[in-house]
Amino acid sequence: MRSSRTPSPIITLLTDFGLEDAYVGLMKGVILEIDPAARIVDLTHCVPPQDITRAALILRSAVEYFPPGTIHVAVVDPGVGSSRRPLLVHTPRAAFVGPDNGVLVPAARQTGELRAYVLDQPSRFRQPVSQTFHGRDVFAPVAAHLSVGADPATLGTPTPHITELSLPRPRIAEGGVEGEVIYIDRFGNLVTNIEASMLDRFRRRSLSVSIGGTPVAGPVASYAAVAEGTPLALIDSWNVLEIAVRNGSAARELRAGLGTTVRVTARDQDNE
Amino acid sequence: MRSSRTPSPIITLLTDFGLEDAYVGLMKGVILEIDPAARIVDLTHCVPPQDITRAALILRSAVEYFPPGTIHVAVVDPGVGSSRRPLLVHTPRAAFVGPDNGVLVPAARQTGELRAYVLDQPSRFRQPVSQTFHGRDVFAPVAAHLSVGADPATLGTPTPHITELSLPRPRIAEGGVEGEVIYIDRFGNLVTNIEASMLDRFRRRSLSVSIGGTPVAGPVASYAAVAEGTPLALIDSWNVLEIAVRNGSAARELRAGLGTTVRVTARDQDNE
Amino acid sequence: MRSSRTPSPIITLLTDFGLEDAYVGLMKGVILEIDPAARIVDLTHCVPPQDITRAALILRSAVEYFPPGTIHVAVVDPGVGSSRRPLLVHTPRAAFVGPDNGVLVPAARQTGELRAYVLDQPSRFRQPVSQTFHGRDVFAPVAAHLSVGADPATLGTPTPHITELSLPRPRIAEGGVEGEVIYIDRFGNLVTNIEASMLDRFRRRSLSVSIGGTPVAGPVASYAAVAEGTPLALIDSWNVLEIAVRNGSAARELRAGLGTTVRVTARDQDNE
Repeated sequence: MRSSRTPSPIITLLTDFGLEDAYVGLMKGVILEIDPAARIVDLTHCVPPQDITRAALILRSAVEYFPPGTIHVAVVDPGVGSSRRPLLVHTPRAAFVGPDNGVLVPAARQTGELRAYVLDQPSRFRQPVSQTFHGRDVFAPVAAHLSVGADPATLGTPTPHITELSLPRPRIAEGGVEGEVIYIDRFGNLVTNIEASMLDRFRRRSLSVSIGGTPVAGPVASYAAVAEGTPLALIDSWNVLEIAVRNGSAARELRAGLGTTVRVTARDQDNE
Repeated sequence: MRSSRTPSPIITLLTDFGLEDAYVGLMKGVILEIDPAARIVDLTHCVPPQDITRAALILRSAVEYFPPGTIHVAVVDPGVGSSRRPLLVHTPRAAFVGPDNGVLVPAARQTGELRAYVLDQPSRFRQPVSQTFHGRDVFAPVAAHLSVGADPATLGTPTPHITELSLPRPRIAEGGVEGEVIYIDRFGNLVTNIEASMLDRFRRRSLSVSIGGTPVAGPVASYAAVAEGTPLALIDSWNVLEIAVRNGSAARELRAGLGTTVRVTARDQDNE
Repeated sequence: MRSSRTPSPIITLLTDFGLEDAYVGLMKGVILEIDPAARIVDLTHCVPPQDITRAALILRSAVEYFPPGTIHVAVVDPGVGSSRRPLLVHTPRAAFVGPDNGVLVPAARQTGELRAYVLDQPSRFRQPVSQTFHGRDVFAPVAAHLSVGADPATLGTPTPHITELSLPRPRIAEGGVEGEVIYIDRFGNLVTNIEASMLDRFRRRSLSVSIGGTPVAGPVASYAAVAEGTPLALIDSWNVLEIAVRNGSAARELRAGLGTTVRVTARDQDNE
């Protein structure tokens, strides 16, 4: 148990529960009953039902913006009630709680070495445990026990195996990088799997970018570098290559979606 | 007034205000001005406008997941500005604040004996009181005064009469139970008014379930008990019979809605 | 730095980021890393993308419902990454943080004399500062520094010039007031730019109201003053003239939108 003067760590919540029902509220009630001083932050609850990949990408993009010790709860759980295991993943920087279906892994991997535990201590769950809502009955109470200082080893049993999530990888070659759109945000911005660091080998000014075969401006420094309505590429706040339309929706205007190919080509540098 | 070391009780908010406007935020501002240490949890604000029944069902399903002493504020209030009375309902486990239109009653009844008060102390409201937004001007400040320890008797006058809410009741007979869909959640799961306890008189394995005349699998233990896309019945996290489609929308795939009949039939048990 | 016993001021957040992504959550993570005791309230994040006027109206309607000292962060920022300046506006009652595009101004003006600062102290930002998400990298950390007690003068440089926002003004004459719809809420209520005080010169009972040429009942005291489905005018919770339909959507039923003309006419008072 922590001293009464240290604030509780932050607990973030990420689900596909939506906002029309009270499911998220019930998780908060369960957490606050165990840790009355819990500090809870919603990442989003509007992940499309059962979209594990989208949830995993959101969580991975979020972890570095939370203080060390934050507890991240992610519940996108099409296998609830099956034999899929409930998991706690502990890293030097953060803790992750959710189903063993890959949703936690990309985020956890980028915060350091993992120690994974299967949550198998029913005394740490809310009883009776329903077979349809482990967010409320398993993951919320476990996160709250962590929040008040429980040792991970008292919550579960170490496991060497966790379910990985397969994310599409870009193809990097001498002449450039070929990736794809992996996330579309509310503004219609197209987030790709081409990381800024993958472009470091090329001189930035020598690069040209196309999406689905259509060339776009850039990479530019900001949306404001082009006129309104112009498609562009830039390194965005995820620190990856993004295709956008200034003050418009690139998804709509470029008719692009998840999986659309994005090519970065290094022009002949001698001719530049 | 409570000591500075005891945390404030939780205040939950449930409204039909939606999330596009700042109405919910204004309620929180008013609460935090009166109780700077208030702990506020949103249940949902996406109740369809004026849908008292849906709000009442959400609230009833939520109360047991919050600590004793929680203050629940529910504002679905088609009669705002009319002679409908503002109400505080106190029970041994929780307090409920909202309009006297039935929205508080199913939740309050299940937490113990009620004491109801008409809120008639203008000094406890935010002045001037608008005729269109009692959530901000009446219910939020009253909840905050409760939160800092005000005695209910200083907030209103006891009343023996409150407006009840009529909810559809299932028909229980020797051969089974006939109920109906009373709530549809974001996943398209069909929540019925058939409570788990109503099925206790039957041997679980002898039961078969149909919705709108169409048989479904189960009652099964969890969604995972059937193949993807299969319609099923189970006891859900509300502890009632639910019709669902594994990783799909039962509402859409079974073309069912509020009021659709659900039948549980006990097969001839000798023949089993 | 404030004493550990005084609660942090409230920080409100108002953006067009929506709720599908984690952008709002990231701002909260950044704030809580700087001020672990921050108290954050969402106004709304569902402003339509880049709709500065709607955000400014929401913020203006909100400030009086928050305690003195509240820090309001508004990020509707079509010019992010351009030369538009990041701003802190300080008034005797509140602080406002956001882009210098007018979004802060109507709210700030109504809380007293302004002192504006250009945010130009990179050490107070989250580094590296992206060119696409100043909400997370500039405005959130500045708000958090204010929350823990930083002097505005350490966050930026005073500036005498800020970008104003042009809002439509009603025309007031002897015979009445002509204004327009400036905001439509989730219920379809039509909020106008005709303030209650503009009607004080007329005897209330002598007034008649029309929208787009169609007469409506009132001004009445509350929605409940007319039958269900009847269009009406009243002074609403914004303290302005609103056109509504009791338990219906005025926007839909009167086919009205932003900019639709609303006329208040003082009838010949001798004939009354």
